Amino acid sequence: MNKSLKIAIAGLGTVGVGVIKILESHKEMIAARCGRTIEIVAVSASNRNRDRGVDISGYDWADNAVDFAGRDDVDIVVELIGGSDGIAKALAGSSLKAGKAFVTANKALIAHHGAELADMAEASGKALRFEAAVAGGIPIIKSIGEGLAANKLNRVYGILNGTCNYILTQMEATGQDYDAILEETQRLGYLEADPALDLDGIDAGHKLAILSSVAFGVQTDFAHVYMEGIRRINSVDIDYAKELGYRIKLLGISALSDQGLEQRVHPCMVPLSSPIATVDNGFNAVVVDGDFIDQTFYEGRGAGEGPTASAVVADLIDIARGHHGHAFFVPASELEKAKPVPMSERNGAYYIRLHVTEKPGVIADIAAAFKDENISLDTMLQKGTERDGSVYVIMVTHETSEEHLMGSLERINQLTAVLDKALAIRIENL
Amino acid sequence: MNKSLKIAIAGLGTVGVGVIKILESHKEMIAARCGRTIEIVAVSASNRNRDRGVDISGYDWADNAVDFAGRDDVDIVVELIGGSDGIAKALAGSSLKAGKAFVTANKALIAHHGAELADMAEASGKALRFEAAVAGGIPIIKSIGEGLAANKLNRVYGILNGTCNYILTQMEATGQDYDAILEETQRLGYLEADPALDLDGIDAGHKLAILSSVAFGVQTDFAHVYMEGIRRINSVDIDYAKELGYRIKLLGISALSDQGLEQRVHPCMVPLSSPIATVDNGFNAVVVDGDFIDQTFYEGRGAGEGPTASAVVADLIDIARGHHGHAFFVPASELEKAKPVPMSERNGAYYIRLHVTEKPGVIADIAAAFKDENISLDTMLQKGTERDGSVYVIMVTHETSEEHLMGSLERINQLTAVLDKALAIRIENL
Repeated sequence: MNKSLKIAIAGLGTVGVGVIKILESHKEMIAARCGRTIEIVAVSASNRNRDRGVDISGYDWADNAVDFAGRDDVDIVVELIGGSDGIAKALAGSSLKAGKAFVTANKALIAHHGAELADMAEASGKALRFEAAVAGGIPIIKSIGEGLAANKLNRVYGILNGTCNYILTQMEATGQDYDAILEETQRLGYLEADPALDLDGIDAGHKLAILSSVAFGVQTDFAHVYMEGIRRINSVDIDYAKELGYRIKLLGISALSDQGLEQRVHPCMVPLSSPIATVDNGFNAVVVDGDFIDQTFYEGRGAGEGPTASAVVADLIDIARGHHGHAFFVPASELEKAKPVPMSERNGAYYIRLHVTEKPGVIADIAAAFKDENISLDTMLQKGTERDGSVYVIMVTHETSEEHLMGSLERINQLTAVLDKALAIRIENL
Repeated sequence: MNKSLKIAIAGLGTVGVGVIKILESHKEMIAARCGRTIEIVAVSASNRNRDRGVDISGYDWADNAVDFAGRDDVDIVVELIGGSDGIAKALAGSSLKAGKAFVTANKALIAHHGAELADMAEASGKALRFEAAVAGGIPIIKSIGEGLAANKLNRVYGILNGTCNYILTQMEATGQDYDAILEETQRLGYLEADPALDLDGIDAGHKLAILSSVAFGVQTDFAHVYMEGIRRINSVDIDYAKELGYRIKLLGISALSDQGLEQRVHPCMVPLSSPIATVDNGFNAVVVDGDFIDQTFYEGRGAGEGPTASAVVADLIDIARGHHGHAFFVPASELEKAKPVPMSERNGAYYIRLHVTEKPGVIADIAAAFKDENISLDTMLQKGTERDGSVYVIMVTHETSEEHLMGSLERINQLTAVLDKALAIRIENL
């Protein structure tokens, strides 16, 4: 048997504890699969004495994880701290410079600094791996970069944030509105410390930028990911979606074409019959379209101790087996800089929810705003009046451009009869 | 750039042609992904002059593929001929002995001789790969053996034969009976040359034996795969399944427990709400349960030129990248011999379709046969009488053992009022 592979773990939150549990409970199984043992030599976290349900007394302790880079007995640094900069970034840089392999679950770090870190890893001939950064227990990075490597891929999309998917699923299941479900979600501990990362689509945006890079061989370009979260979705929309044959899902969609790279995260209306529409609660799913495979679909738990730690340990096993490769599956220097396609160029149909005061002429004014932007309507629904005399008007447009749609909504939002800003949900016939 | 990797292709049917198309159309992309080119140097097939829609004049021709083993300029032999023995087996043996890597889409070959071939590959330090043998375009072998390698897996199941899935889907969609759809399927060219491979579950059985080996680290044991095909399913069953909240799918199910290894292929009633129930037509899907990932689900096209060739080329790319590993992810000598669990030990509920002459006492006789085996019924349905005076009686049992169920059906089949052998479909609440 080969020499044992020695790792140091920075960050002992849910995922760090999961990694320890897997490596300790499956020690022999993993050794048989790698031909060598994987051994934890040191750990680091902000609080040494917190009860984590695992015994860490057998590992060296470091108050400062950056010390791992200086240890001769560490082969791989596992970073499970999080955050695009700060200690995570410092640890990545110092570890890779010191010739350690670096494994991380940190989507923000890779979305912001992926190519730079990959470059450093290549300079020292060591691995940089981040399977756990996207879609938890689904081995999607490996599937795209290795399993589907014979294909020119043209589109990748999916449900990349389990928390938002949980909220949307529960809103439909219980009939409760956004605020009530959000409160419950917070109580269950499903939200990131900064809820905006989940609710505003930023977490999904990080993951999408990584997927784009792996799928299309382009530099991660998080700055050009359009992001819109789920905060404005309410029960009215959930109900009308169903009536119209759709379900609302927060999707990340990335597509490469002659026009450039389109990257967007926003709520979508997807047909009820679409596989992605059936993905509920904390599950994630990714769909990959390629020229020879046609379409493949992957589903699994998007977060949590077991699934995320499973992905981290899969990276460790790959390295232990000697499967070193480029972090993004081509040399970092060859990653192309894709031209971003602006969101205004999106073409498609839209669901629009207007909340207006019921009085003569309102619909005529709204219709005029659409007409002036050359937008035609497929469906219009209005069902009774709310207690306060207001009404919800639901419209579904025919295919139009985002630019025209936004132009008309800007005008509509200025009408005095319009009580809330119009909500537009893009219809994606996936 | 490293030295080019030279391959020889044996078999120029659909998949062989697909491999040529991918390697020629994506030459540069693949070279960028591997750091070296993959070059076809020789091909072989039964008929040199057939028009295949690809130009093979630039490659050496061999009348006998076994000659590839003797060529110094061939690094990898790609076998796309099929069949568990004969030329495929001879080619595998001679290639591996001669120190070539061996890539195949041949499920029968691997199901029957996998461990032996893996042993030979390890002896010469070369790769044996067969991603294309299971589930076409879905990278399921890699996902299980690498992506989920941190887990102790306990169950793998799926839709492994696209032809049967197509037939069952079309029966439901059109309302036509088995014979009519079978005829259309044959006309479309979806059936194997020997239709029994598809219709009797043998093809799915081969794939299941391979999945078991990869997932559980056991020797392939095709001899102990229970197989039952779809020939007896008819419209009556499709309709009643729907009414009862199920859909009929031909599944391969493999599970490892303290009792041993259970491997079975047969039609199942799966709940309409189950993800596997939504997989239609030529698509395959695989579900993998593990101790840390919980459950992951994979779906894609199960056969055809593009998807299967994509899997073959993914194996070539892996080898070109230097990702050599054990064929079954542990050394062949360490694959365990699992104790087979006999089918008679299956526990679960059953759908039973009886076709009987309507006369007093029939139901009493049937009920007595169930009672004597201690089987209780959950549902019984009988709707009107056929033109010939016969009736269909549908029964759904509570959980029981296969042994008791078969005992009662044996008795029931002997009743004079029973016109056809009773059909039992196992209910799997997946």
